[in-house]
Order: sequence, then structure tokens, then C-alpha cells
Amino acid sequence: MRNPQLAAIPYEQMRREPIATAREYIRHGQYQSHTAGIGAGRLQANLAIMPASYALDFMRFCQRNPKPCPLVGVTDTGDPVMHTVGDVDIRTDLPRYNVYENGKLSHQCTDITDLWQADSVAFAIGCSFTFETALIKSGIRLTHIEQDRVVAMYRTSLQTVPAGPFGGGMVVSMRAIPNRQIDRVVELSRKFPHAHGAPVHIGDPAQIGITHFDQPDWGDTTRIEAGHTPVFWACGVTPQNAITRAGLPLFISHTPGSMLITDVPEDAEVPVLTN
Amino acid sequence: MRNPQLAAIPYEQMRREPIATAREYIRHGQYQSHTAGIGAGRLQANLAIMPASYALDFMRFCQRNPKPCPLVGVTDTGDPVMHTVGDVDIRTDLPRYNVYENGKLSHQCTDITDLWQADSVAFAIGCSFTFETALIKSGIRLTHIEQDRVVAMYRTSLQTVPAGPFGGGMVVSMRAIPNRQIDRVVELSRKFPHAHGAPVHIGDPAQIGITHFDQPDWGDTTRIEAGHTPVFWACGVTPQNAITRAGLPLFISHTPGSMLITDVPEDAEVPVLTN
Repeated sequence: MRNPQLAAIPYEQMRREPIATAREYIRHGQYQSHTAGIGAGRLQANLAIMPASYALDFMRFCQRNPKPCPLVGVTDTGDPVMHTVGDVDIRTDLPRYNVYENGKLSHQCTDITDLWQADSVAFAIGCSFTFETALIKSGIRLTHIEQDRVVAMYRTSLQTVPAGPFGGGMVVSMRAIPNRQIDRVVELSRKFPHAHGAPVHIGDPAQIGITHFDQPDWGDTTRIEAGHTPVFWACGVTPQNAITRAGLPLFISHTPGSMLITDVPEDAEVPVLTN
Repeated sequence: MRNPQLAAIPYEQMRREPIATAREYIRHGQYQSHTAGIGAGRLQANLAIMPASYALDFMRFCQRNPKPCPLVGVTDTGDPVMHTVGDVDIRTDLPRYNVYENGKLSHQCTDITDLWQADSVAFAIGCSFTFETALIKSGIRLTHIEQDRVVAMYRTSLQTVPAGPFGGGMVVSMRAIPNRQIDRVVELSRKFPHAHGAPVHIGDPAQIGITHFDQPDWGDTTRIEAGHTPVFWACGVTPQNAITRAGLPLFISHTPGSMLITDVPEDAEVPVLTN
């Protein structure tokens, strides 16, 4: 909960703090913005909170669509702590939340303690920050990061495998990759099943139903330079779309970019802390 | 359902049949034994069928224990076809089933059509056949396969992460690996997250609570030759133990060794068929 007596912490300081300190600042409302580069080396995740009556179908949806929806954590019903990924209280430990009612965005907030219910279940779904770090470490240039822009995201004609009320099209993110590095990029990103894995499409956007390449549905336009090819990965906006499309009475997610930062190392074999 | 007018098919013939034909024979009760080497190149899996009221906790248990319980498929409630892994009717397409009532083995059968309920949910959990094939292809000798013995399995002091009524100790399988090949074996098996992934322990059995190495809890004894080290992997008996321990009124599994053979290629990135 925001304590007005505590100072706001600037992004550049947050990037230098260890995860435990960064989480304390977030928990007390002293940092309310995006998490890229914070808690370096820890797995970050999308958040989805819903009533338990939808949870079994949503877990099926994640199992059937592991590339857009790599499930990395799930709470017990009514327990706001996701023990398997750290000492993480889902109600306070993200910088900012989006609250949806009946499928429509209702408001944003920085603490959902008042909204957490006895039948709430929280899910953590891997995000692409993890494999982007690995690509950069391997000498792959990612234009949108160099230019401090948001990755371009598109709705596609690729369909998810439905489960109960959850279904609909797959959303993808696009990165322009130098042609000679594509094989390496596929090989590298496949090693991160908790971060969307290998690309779902390489090349002509029209083949996956993208007819407006210059106008992404989310994020910024990226020009494709000579010798580069657009490469498309399954995107964590997919489950968010599937859930809002299902029109749940209450659904809470992270605000885009303000992710759940776990204690799990991003190169861990499995997204579960062990002793 | 067994049709007495149809001939039994010998194992050596089953090994040569394509998966569709092999499945037809199994479906009609013409083959009722183990599946090692049948449907070559397809992902095989452990089976667990339970009432829907336990399904959410069991999916949590699998998510929290991905090495012993790599979930590769789940049906809709009451739908006996696991569409994501092929045209597989869970009621008939395994050679033999174990039926448990209140946590105790009640009987075995070759068709569970009469036991499938409107609230039944079936889970497929990856098994070690897949990574064993990959190890052998890479020139790693697996003594228990060369000697046509069942891999040695042990209860350990390693604990699973509980979910609802499911919990308890982890069961492991042991393979004696030449010392100079251990690094390679770890690297290779880590590439198969749907088949238990990398080892959970290497070396001294006592460190994971195995005090009776010469007497495995299941399977055959393997002598450790000079220059070899015992290497332990998480085992699919773990979820079976967790379920019987929970004492569900009705639980159906495969009979050990007689697995679910899917249509999914065993080297697929994700265990879901795509068009």
C-alpha cells in the first residue's frame, strides 16, 4: 500500500537494487512503473487472477497453448502468496495492476489487497524479457531495445486450442533479425520454454493474417532493414485476450510492462524454487 | 473392447506397425502388453484419470513438480478423447489399465469404457522412454535396456511440493552412466522437459535417502561397474504414488510399462499437435 511518507524510487536506482530490495520498494508503492532490467537475472512473468471456478479451464488453456501461455506458477485458492517462485505476495508485489470487470478494463491500481477474494487464484505466465536477455548476451541485436521502443505486437489468424470459455486468436510479437542469425535465434529461444520458446512464424506476415504490418495492434512500428527478416513469437497478450474475451466478472492482470518479478533465476531448468 | 474373433498381435509385429495401426490393434484388445519401442518416435505417457473435483489440485501438483510430473495432455471434463495428442480415446487406446478404489489397487483391465464418468478428467504425464531413446542414439549405453531389465526405481527423501491432497516423496529411476559421459547425459536429458528433464541427483544414493541401493522399490537391481556412477531422474511413479496416497474414490492409471502412445513426435518442442 502506498505510504506517502516513503520516497518514490527512480528507475535507474531500481535497476541497481537486488531483487529483495526492489520488491520491498514495489510492495510499499515506492515504484509503480515498468520492470524491464529490474531484479536482473530473475524470471519475470505476466499475472492473471480469476475466480477459482474458471481456474481448471484456464490451466487447460495454458497446457494446450504452451507457447503463448507458458505457465510458471499458480497459487492455492485464496492464498495470495505464490510460494513456488519466492516470497511473493501477489496483492502488492507488482508495480501496477489492470482490473477488468465483465471483460472491460475498469481501472488501474498499485495494490489489489481489497480485491483479493477467498476464491481468487493467481497465475504467473512467462514473458519474453527472459529470452531477449539471452539473445542480447549472444550478440543478437534487438532493434526495439536499442531504440527504447515497445516490441511490435499483432493479432494473427493463428488460432489457440480452446478450453472452456477460453480461446480465440494468437497474438505475436515481432523482432527484425539479421538473416544470417535466424537459425541461431531459433535455437537459442527454443531453450526458453518458459519464455514463449522458438518462433511461431518466420517471414511473410500475410501468411499468419497480418495485413497491416506498418500498424502493429500494440507497441511501436519497426522498419525492416535490408538483410533482415521479421520473426514472430507467441506473445503473453494472448492469454490476456482470451480471458477478457471470456468476459469474467473479475479479472486482474499486471499493467503491460509492469511485470511480476520472481526469485527464480531466468536460466533455471524449471520455474520452481528448490532448497 | 476385446473381440475374441480378432487375433492377438505379437510384440515383434507391433514394433513394426505404424502408430495408427498399432493403436487400432490396442483399441480392439489385440495387444495387451508393454509399449516400449512401439509407435517408434512418438511421445509416450503415463495416464491418470480422476474425478473433476480433484483436477485443479492435480494440475497445480504437476505445475509445481514439473520434473516428476511433466504434464503433456489433459482432457475436457467427461470427454474421453485427448484431442491435443492425436485421435486418442483414453478409454480403449492403452493396452492395460490399473483401477484403484479408495487408494487401493482394485483390478486390471484392457478397456475402461464402463468406468469413464461424466465427471472424469484424464491426464497424460511424460515418461522416460523418450529421453532414453535420445541417449541411446547419442551413443550412451543403458545397461538395463541392453539386459532387457526394468529400470531400478527408489523412494527418496526428496519431497514434492504439495497441492491440495497431493504430496509426498519423490520416486526416482536410476541409470548407471560411465563417468566420462555424465556431463553429456545431463545436457541431453535436460532437452526433454516432457520426459523428466535433467537428473535430480548424481552419485551417493544415501544423500537422497536411499539406504537399500541393492533392493530397488520397483524394477530390477543394477550392479554399478567400475568407472560408472549412479544417476537419478525424477520418475512418473511419483504422481501415481501421490494420487493413491490421497485415497481418491476412483483413480485409473496405465498398467506400468503399458503406456499411452500419442501422435506427438518425441522431439516436438511442445506436446500439442498443430496443423
